[in-house]
Amino acid sequence: MLLMSGVALGAGISSYALGAFEPKIARKPQYGDQNDVLKVKEELRLKGLQVLDDPKSLETYGSSPNSYHPSSSHSIVVKAFSTEDVVTVVNLARKHKLPVTPYSGGTSLEGHFSGYSENLGGICIDLSGMNKVIQINEDDGDMVVQAGIRWEEVNEELAKRNIPLFFPLDPGPGATIAGGIGTGCSGTNAVRYGTARGEWYINLTAVLPNGEVIKTRRRARKSSTGFDLTKLFVGAEGTLGIVTEVTLRLAPKLPTSVAVAQFPDVQSAVSAVTELLRSDMYTHIQCVELLDVNMMRAINHAGQSNKAFADKDSLFFKFQGSPSSIKETSDLVKKIVKKHGSSRFDFARSKEEAEELWHHRKVALWSAMAWVGDKDVKIWTTDVCVPPSKLPQLVAETKQDIDEHGIISCVLGHVGDGNFHALLAFRNDEELEKVKGAVHRLVHRAHSLDGTMSGEHGVGVGKKEYLVEELGEGTVSLMRAIKQTIDPMNLFNPGKLYPEKDP
Amino acid sequence: MLLMSGVALGAGISSYALGAFEPKIARKPQYGDQNDVLKVKEELRLKGLQVLDDPKSLETYGSSPNSYHPSSSHSIVVKAFSTEDVVTVVNLARKHKLPVTPYSGGTSLEGHFSGYSENLGGICIDLSGMNKVIQINEDDGDMVVQAGIRWEEVNEELAKRNIPLFFPLDPGPGATIAGGIGTGCSGTNAVRYGTARGEWYINLTAVLPNGEVIKTRRRARKSSTGFDLTKLFVGAEGTLGIVTEVTLRLAPKLPTSVAVAQFPDVQSAVSAVTELLRSDMYTHIQCVELLDVNMMRAINHAGQSNKAFADKDSLFFKFQGSPSSIKETSDLVKKIVKKHGSSRFDFARSKEEAEELWHHRKVALWSAMAWVGDKDVKIWTTDVCVPPSKLPQLVAETKQDIDEHGIISCVLGHVGDGNFHALLAFRNDEELEKVKGAVHRLVHRAHSLDGTMSGEHGVGVGKKEYLVEELGEGTVSLMRAIKQTIDPMNLFNPGKLYPEKDP
Repeated sequence: MLLMSGVALGAGISSYALGAFEPKIARKPQYGDQNDVLKVKEELRLKGLQVLDDPKSLETYGSSPNSYHPSSSHSIVVKAFSTEDVVTVVNLARKHKLPVTPYSGGTSLEGHFSGYSENLGGICIDLSGMNKVIQINEDDGDMVVQAGIRWEEVNEELAKRNIPLFFPLDPGPGATIAGGIGTGCSGTNAVRYGTARGEWYINLTAVLPNGEVIKTRRRARKSSTGFDLTKLFVGAEGTLGIVTEVTLRLAPKLPTSVAVAQFPDVQSAVSAVTELLRSDMYTHIQCVELLDVNMMRAINHAGQSNKAFADKDSLFFKFQGSPSSIKETSDLVKKIVKKHGSSRFDFARSKEEAEELWHHRKVALWSAMAWVGDKDVKIWTTDVCVPPSKLPQLVAETKQDIDEHGIISCVLGHVGDGNFHALLAFRNDEELEKVKGAVHRLVHRAHSLDGTMSGEHGVGVGKKEYLVEELGEGTVSLMRAIKQTIDPMNLFNPGKLYPEKDP
Repeated sequence: MLLMSGVALGAGISSYALGAFEPKIARKPQYGDQNDVLKVKEELRLKGLQVLDDPKSLETYGSSPNSYHPSSSHSIVVKAFSTEDVVTVVNLARKHKLPVTPYSGGTSLEGHFSGYSENLGGICIDLSGMNKVIQINEDDGDMVVQAGIRWEEVNEELAKRNIPLFFPLDPGPGATIAGGIGTGCSGTNAVRYGTARGEWYINLTAVLPNGEVIKTRRRARKSSTGFDLTKLFVGAEGTLGIVTEVTLRLAPKLPTSVAVAQFPDVQSAVSAVTELLRSDMYTHIQCVELLDVNMMRAINHAGQSNKAFADKDSLFFKFQGSPSSIKETSDLVKKIVKKHGSSRFDFARSKEEAEELWHHRKVALWSAMAWVGDKDVKIWTTDVCVPPSKLPQLVAETKQDIDEHGIISCVLGHVGDGNFHALLAFRNDEELEKVKGAVHRLVHRAHSLDGTMSGEHGVGVGKKEYLVEELGEGTVSLMRAIKQTIDPMNLFNPGKLYPEKDP
């Protein structure tokens, strides 16, 4: 049976190579059934693995309170604590032809960890117990971890040991290293340190659909030994391999401080950022976050600040470096934001004040929810990213569109990178439909500006219908050909990332 | 015929997916013959493409004066000036089953652009005429170029237009953007800006073996839309696609200055660098280059310096930033190198002095050749890279090994990254054999320290025999499976990167 399936898919791949981009043979996954689910459960328990199969767990692991995409329960949840556990699960999944979906932080927004379908959920591997630090190589500035560890835990562990290094990719609170790799994450630090596409993962260990364990590279910081398979798993959303261990590159931890500037409009704020990121001091800007007038209104409404801000489009800055560098940077920023129309510049005068200021940026989502006021309010969070100079146009057109459709919203963004987040509020199905429409138009708007439908949240089930529009048939077809080569039975996180298509 | 070939290879790929890592069916490429070469030449000329077929050109394009690996002449050299030209050549190559090898700067060191074999050289596509700047997006900090442009030309074009941005990857003089992508390049700036594995290529356009043209991404700086096919081509040495256009991310051009410090030994120099790269000022260190005592001897012997250096292990620094940042960094460096045993620290007091100092680092290879003295001397250049803390051990053991075998050598390295270059001199076949043995042992030494056989020169024909030792069977097998999926006829740069193996 396995052989037959392999050969058929092989033929599909060949047709790609012959110049036809879409495989001629449609991939109709032929998965096992409930009988297989029962057998796998039994075998997992026999092997001593911890299995959950109560309906509540199966649902919880398959859905997110922050995402409103269609989702399904899993058939089995199994907890993994080692690479060997993952191999065991994958081998059983292959034997019984059941889908496998990795789960760790559970913070992603595009339905990445939903079960496969209503009729067959598949096996969910919970990696959150794989949260050990394996080795810290302080002199080399790197660290080996199990992939289920949260990024905040990585930094807490380093701080606890008084090691003045940190891991600079900062996706959402609670996100894990494995999850950040899966979605191709970034965060507020990206303007200074780049993203998951950069060089922060020196190597990784992954379990492939055939049960093999590979390590993508050795521990040298640089290598020009062939194309780098590490990058194959970054943004693959668990569809090509399950990442179990990672060597993280770390950065020196520098002193930081925080400032806020307020502007007459988004255009002025963005042009100030453009000038700043060309200045001699640009490397001292660790973060520069845009919070629009509504976001500031929400923060003011939440009312936990010692500062009273104006309800104006604002920039939150984090500076880094030696004390004199921070001073020089802050002076320059003050001058430049004034030139671009800012009437106000608040520089934190103490560590406490800096933390207080930055706190407002961090709790933006909660402030937004409090602001809308209704206890049944839900927030749809989405992001797109455009070339930085297109950001003002994107923001202006999007706000106009949102207003025209009567949606309550806040906007915030990693403005140095052209990455824009919209928080769209809704209270019922009618408003949800309006929000969906706004997200749909936002994606097309980003594409029309040569941007991407997601700067850091990924594709999942939420955006796969736009993948071809964004990348073109040929590029998606090549992604699919690689997927088919590595996972011919389509076992790994099926239904995510790749668009469905008719046979 | 094409179909048969595809199906057979498809079966090979399937066997990978079934758990056996090495395809069961050995890939014996069945290429066309001299008759096909004649036909392709005729068709290319009919289509108006510029073809070279004089023996001198066929040999020159297939060999390098700086590499001593076995090489073969090409059968045809054809000049491409557009993506369409490349598609034309690739389609003819596929029709007549001839290997295709891209050529652009011709500076690589591991035999990347040799013809396929003595009996059949294949088609060499010369991309060096594809050197146009297509678009500069100054406000977005990016630039679209044809891939055959040299990296120095990119920076010259920006300077000519008074745009204060630059492309920071600085491989060997004369190297092109396409070549840097192919080998996964870096250079002296890597300690500050990272390598080709980072985020400097926003997207690229590639011609695949099936003749399709794909663009890997849009122009946003960040995207989490699936796994990034850009990275598939970085380090692939032209075996997966021929890159024709690239959107480069640019960095702000900052003021720089230069300093030299001299140490009692390599260990002291490396420990000074480790401390410096943890300091508050580390982002102001654009380059930190180790030149060993022999290298300094060669530079002194070349005698073009206004400075007289001691024959000692030395660090050449390039600082960047605002004038006050450079001053603060330089003061800190002076203090730290003194603490680690440096008796001398020369900071350039003018732009001219800085250029004069840095010039010595740039012409190191020529100084080494002049130092050996014999006009028939040749230099084998090789590099490895290890975790930074292992560099002193690597240097010490390598120098001992080289001395024991009576080889004249200089050592220089991008010490901040643990990347080490050896220049090994030889004058005849006997000495060449000794050099080969030293390189062989150096690769194993790097592996024993969890390092890589090449930090920035690539694999080519020179190091493919070590690929499995470095990455493991599983990882190499996955690379090969991807290669077979994309290039089932093994047309693109065959004989490079992937190790040969018995059926």
